[in-house]
Amino acid sequence: MTTQPMDTMGQWKVTMWEEENFQGRRCEFMMECPNIMERGFNKIRSIKVECGPWVGYEYPEFQGQQFILEKGDYPRWDSWSGNSGYRTEYLLSFRPIKCANHSDSKVTLYENEDFQGRMFELCDDYPSLQAMGWCNKEVDSIKVNSGAWVAYQYPGYRGYQYILERDRHNGEYKNYNEYSTQAHTNQIQSIRRIQH
Amino acid sequence: MTTQPMDTMGQWKVTMWEEENFQGRRCEFMMECPNIMERGFNKIRSIKVECGPWVGYEYPEFQGQQFILEKGDYPRWDSWSGNSGYRTEYLLSFRPIKCANHSDSKVTLYENEDFQGRMFELCDDYPSLQAMGWCNKEVDSIKVNSGAWVAYQYPGYRGYQYILERDRHNGEYKNYNEYSTQAHTNQIQSIRRIQH
Repeated sequence: MTTQPMDTMGQWKVTMWEEENFQGRRCEFMMECPNIMERGFNKIRSIKVECGPWVGYEYPEFQGQQFILEKGDYPRWDSWSGNSGYRTEYLLSFRPIKCANHSDSKVTLYENEDFQGRMFELCDDYPSLQAMGWCNKEVDSIKVNSGAWVAYQYPGYRGYQYILERDRHNGEYKNYNEYSTQAHTNQIQSIRRIQH
Repeated sequence: MTTQPMDTMGQWKVTMWEEENFQGRRCEFMMECPNIMERGFNKIRSIKVECGPWVGYEYPEFQGQQFILEKGDYPRWDSWSGNSGYRTEYLLSFRPIKCANHSDSKVTLYENEDFQGRMFELCDDYPSLQAMGWCNKEVDSIKVNSGAWVAYQYPGYRGYQYILERDRHNGEYKNYNEYSTQAHTNQIQSIRRIQH
């Protein structure tokens, strides 16, 4: 897609609104915001990503459920959620995501905690890990070798989302609790690369 | 992934339960079922896809909202929905999907109805069509040149799902109403190939 080195790729820009459907007070961001309330906003209820990707969080300080936000329009909570059973109607913190070139992305899944047990190395998107040959519907630890990925609870990129990056935790997620501050399950049934 | 010709690839198999979490009466299917009630079931509330892909429908006779079902476990409606704003708590008909080899899939998007206006030919998965250079968040007609695809209302494979196949409508979807019997919008912001 691009031949630029990774550090110069990021020209992130997002516009956020306090109300649904791009109504009410608005603000533009080009870098992370750990607490939208410190910028005088109560909540963020709609988003246009002009240059991404970003990740949005349920709580301040990048806590709680997380949502991948790629270039496009998010008029309401149901456009970012994908997890229909658990409503997150507004976001309180968000940050840009650094990616690798798409063809350089690599991640390793492990059957057990601490990078033990059966393993599988991936370089591509998988809407169904079981179709690829992963026999469980669980993944107990993950090492991101390159780039940024989003893993999902259910097949077809649905359910809880976990943003996994080479630049966070040194790319090492030893236990499913480290996938996210709200991870209640080690279920992962689909995974894909994040790209600019 | 496979070198077999398309017609011999499909060995579809799915197990369905009347209650959530794989409880209650169950039934196995290896071919399409236009009306689950004619098989003595009231509703389907959980699903295990052993060999896919399949598409499930909100109503009998392949009508209403549609949901891509790839290999894996679907314990509850929220695992297939991805559209959090509109609940479809059970499925009433379903059928297998024929795919091309992943590398042979091709689709063309058009800005206007009847394959008019600006066009874009795709052979890959796009979690954000806008990031790829498609300026609108709408797509008014689609021609599937090869394989089967799933298009989504929002970026990141979220919102309403539309299964688009070379083997249906001769691959021609002249108007957004033809994407699905319940399509209320021409919004399409992400698209991906369906694979075995």
